[in-house]
Amino acid sequence: MANKDHTDPEKMEKIVSLCKRRGFIFQAGELYGGLNGCWDYGPLGAELKRNLKDYWWRKTVQERDDVLGMDGSILTMQQVLKASGHLDGFSDPMSDCLLSKARLRADQVPEQDGTAVWYSGAELQDTGWSVQREFAVLVPEGKDPAASKKVARQFYAQFMPDKKVSPKELVLNEEKQEVLKGTTRFNPDNGSLLTEPKDFNLMFQTKMGASADDNDPNAIAFLRPETAQSIFVQYKNIHDSNRIKLPFGIAQVGKSFRNEINPRNYTFRSREFEQMEVEFFCHPDDGMRLTDEWLETRLCFYEEIGIPREKLHILDVPDGERAHYSKKTYDIEYEFPFGIQELEGVAYRTDYDLGKHQKGSGRPLEYFDEETKERFIPHVVEPSAGCDRTVLALICEAFEEEEITNEKGKTETRNVMHFSPKVAPIKVGIFPLLKKNEEQVRIARDIQKTLQPWMTVFYDEGGAVGRRYRRQDEVGTPFCVTIDFDTLGENGEDLKGTVTVRHRDSMEQERLPIDGLLAWLLERIR
Amino acid sequence: MANKDHTDPEKMEKIVSLCKRRGFIFQAGELYGGLNGCWDYGPLGAELKRNLKDYWWRKTVQERDDVLGMDGSILTMQQVLKASGHLDGFSDPMSDCLLSKARLRADQVPEQDGTAVWYSGAELQDTGWSVQREFAVLVPEGKDPAASKKVARQFYAQFMPDKKVSPKELVLNEEKQEVLKGTTRFNPDNGSLLTEPKDFNLMFQTKMGASADDNDPNAIAFLRPETAQSIFVQYKNIHDSNRIKLPFGIAQVGKSFRNEINPRNYTFRSREFEQMEVEFFCHPDDGMRLTDEWLETRLCFYEEIGIPREKLHILDVPDGERAHYSKKTYDIEYEFPFGIQELEGVAYRTDYDLGKHQKGSGRPLEYFDEETKERFIPHVVEPSAGCDRTVLALICEAFEEEEITNEKGKTETRNVMHFSPKVAPIKVGIFPLLKKNEEQVRIARDIQKTLQPWMTVFYDEGGAVGRRYRRQDEVGTPFCVTIDFDTLGENGEDLKGTVTVRHRDSMEQERLPIDGLLAWLLERIR
Repeated sequence: MANKDHTDPEKMEKIVSLCKRRGFIFQAGELYGGLNGCWDYGPLGAELKRNLKDYWWRKTVQERDDVLGMDGSILTMQQVLKASGHLDGFSDPMSDCLLSKARLRADQVPEQDGTAVWYSGAELQDTGWSVQREFAVLVPEGKDPAASKKVARQFYAQFMPDKKVSPKELVLNEEKQEVLKGTTRFNPDNGSLLTEPKDFNLMFQTKMGASADDNDPNAIAFLRPETAQSIFVQYKNIHDSNRIKLPFGIAQVGKSFRNEINPRNYTFRSREFEQMEVEFFCHPDDGMRLTDEWLETRLCFYEEIGIPREKLHILDVPDGERAHYSKKTYDIEYEFPFGIQELEGVAYRTDYDLGKHQKGSGRPLEYFDEETKERFIPHVVEPSAGCDRTVLALICEAFEEEEITNEKGKTETRNVMHFSPKVAPIKVGIFPLLKKNEEQVRIARDIQKTLQPWMTVFYDEGGAVGRRYRRQDEVGTPFCVTIDFDTLGENGEDLKGTVTVRHRDSMEQERLPIDGLLAWLLERIR
Repeated sequence: MANKDHTDPEKMEKIVSLCKRRGFIFQAGELYGGLNGCWDYGPLGAELKRNLKDYWWRKTVQERDDVLGMDGSILTMQQVLKASGHLDGFSDPMSDCLLSKARLRADQVPEQDGTAVWYSGAELQDTGWSVQREFAVLVPEGKDPAASKKVARQFYAQFMPDKKVSPKELVLNEEKQEVLKGTTRFNPDNGSLLTEPKDFNLMFQTKMGASADDNDPNAIAFLRPETAQSIFVQYKNIHDSNRIKLPFGIAQVGKSFRNEINPRNYTFRSREFEQMEVEFFCHPDDGMRLTDEWLETRLCFYEEIGIPREKLHILDVPDGERAHYSKKTYDIEYEFPFGIQELEGVAYRTDYDLGKHQKGSGRPLEYFDEETKERFIPHVVEPSAGCDRTVLALICEAFEEEEITNEKGKTETRNVMHFSPKVAPIKVGIFPLLKKNEEQVRIARDIQKTLQPWMTVFYDEGGAVGRRYRRQDEVGTPFCVTIDFDTLGENGEDLKGTVTVRHRDSMEQERLPIDGLLAWLLERIR
């Protein structure tokens, strides 16, 4: 059941469990304990993500005359990110926990009132030398500071790495008690005082080339923190090679990387993630209007892939909360089981980026309008969607434990994923009714071969048909085709050459001729 | 013209030029001088690469019952690469140039005979302190060592960073001359002596998380050097979630990264590249047979996308040259204009990888065969194709400067890319004969709208039709459709509702009804 704040942790747990059990999503490096903030898509997850990306590309690039695609490098020059502002400004304020050495985002830990009661404890190193550590426990206003000792002991035992040291060695520093008035942060996990926030850059850095000189600036590269920058850097090349007039967009689907301090909410906030971005270049006069147009285009897209408009929230980001260069930003948010969170931002970035790169590179990035003889730096509207987030929204939206009445009149729970046929990982299940019936199997295999060049097909001949339906329901296959005795013409010529098509959502069945099956399915899955 | 060694540098130059001019490929970060070994695909390159990857996925995953897809994380745990052997063994022997500080792959620089004549020169630092540097010039056997001074001066002037120091300060060290007998390496660019080779790991390393502790082993991650390892690490999860029997494969398309010391041959050897890999798991008895089967499957694939069998060379890698764990390896090579080079390796990797990960993780990765009651670590056959290399092969294979006789009877050169319709970036050009004819334009736009959901279409109404054809020829569009007066029925009812379809390679034209156009094209482009 959903909580008052619209969150539903129980549902989220079930989704995570199903995703692992059926092969949608696994943690990266799980065999070795897992890599925090990184995820691997299993067979079904990979298909779902492919379908989403393909449909985005089709709608955003292929079916439009005014958007060109590109596919840029992940490794990025330092100079590019210096000019874009990421090198100096793309950072979070971080505070270190004095007890556990964890580093936390200072802006996500509230500043609190209370009394900080200080303790010191000895930690033995392998060398035999003892090291003193200090930490504070926050005692909320009105409580006795002496009561903090129990808390301090617990956390000391848990976090001090050398287990040989007894928590009894913990010493209350009675002289060091401070009354704090809403200005101090404590680690919510252990009550320990946090250090003053320092800026921490979120980009992943690496060393490139084989320079023996560690100070060579060309020896440093970064993993791109957004796909957008490679678009801006290639704007001129792409414009020149395509002789295209404003307004036009450049689109890209690809991975970006941010060293999130605190990856969370399953795949939602991860360190490696895929983006689907357009940078739409235009005349300054058209920026505001095109921002509104792109918002509408993107909302339609989400509806088309099965996310209903009423589950989407549009946040018109107010002045003071937008990025400093943005004149207008809409966040498109979705009601996830863990809260209402952003899927996509549609931002009017003005001429900020091209302006910065013109300055940084010293090469002109102006546009010359042949008709009006105007020369200017194009403005940019950016619809930037999170691919993994949208996959997660599709999964959350599709998931249902449905109470149904089975053939025997009993109530049972049907696990069903209501994916839109457009994005469903498997489009159709093909079942011969009886696996011992050679003719049924032969026809089923023929149908499979006909459909496979056009869509993902799952052939299944094991167990009762009802169970096969349920297995497909759980992974969201919209259609199942059964080849039975009617197909062979054993119950009359009328039904010969027809198959049963069973619909996942309604569980209704209809008979269709084999000949028309491909066209019937193509119409529904595209 | 091709040289005797089958290389054709002039052709390669033309290809590189066309790729930039028409928007196939740009150097990454070109605006800022370029990032060595990294490339961005422009609009046409991105489509070509998408088509290749999609067709590979369709043939390798979608149309097979025995291969499942996955999509793994690029960021990889240190433990995974420790177990796989990459952390300790994935390295090249490197030597440093004493003069230019360049680092070279020692195994690519021949060991030579000669006399090393030593020089020393002063280099002024910003501080005003002078630093001495020594370097040697190789004098081939039989030449006068004194003649080396000119060479030394040249390179000193070129490579010593502080231009204020005159080459005259260069001092010949007459006492330090060594006769070298085939054991020493010199920098081919400047004759300077290279240091003894040291191992240099080719993986890109980065720091992950926000641990304040720099020695935390979990704070180090790598960019994967091959997609294969994420498959091995998820083998058990994927097997368990799909209840699939041996033999079966897991396929992945995705980026990998290697810090190549010397990226070269355009996009062929780059630092960021995309792979299309299958790890095909099987019983030990089937390994050799399946290696041969996969070789054949892969050769057919290349033929299907337009690379003729006679341009492919199969290298049966002899004992002693294969990776130590491989029992059999075929390299599939293509005749590039810069030489015969590898597109794909089909390697029988035995149980090496899963065995290593079983040991490294301490978790069982054995397979239990229900029928034979056998328990074993599956063996692996790996067809591993380079996606960027195949794109480059497609471009090289497609490129032609064709001598043709034009309408006026004159000989001219036609630039044409003979891409297979399966991979061609644009499938069809749509041209109204006269852009001022509203009816032609309306019909052309209607046709465009009908085709666009199914394929990339380029609408062009500018200039003479002949010129529009040439523009499409140069980017490899296999079909062009022209809407003319016949289409409108102005030359009789017979031709009303038909269009001219012009074939790129033969330049022949035929008339087809608009109604059948989509089906006609789909049959040819898939």
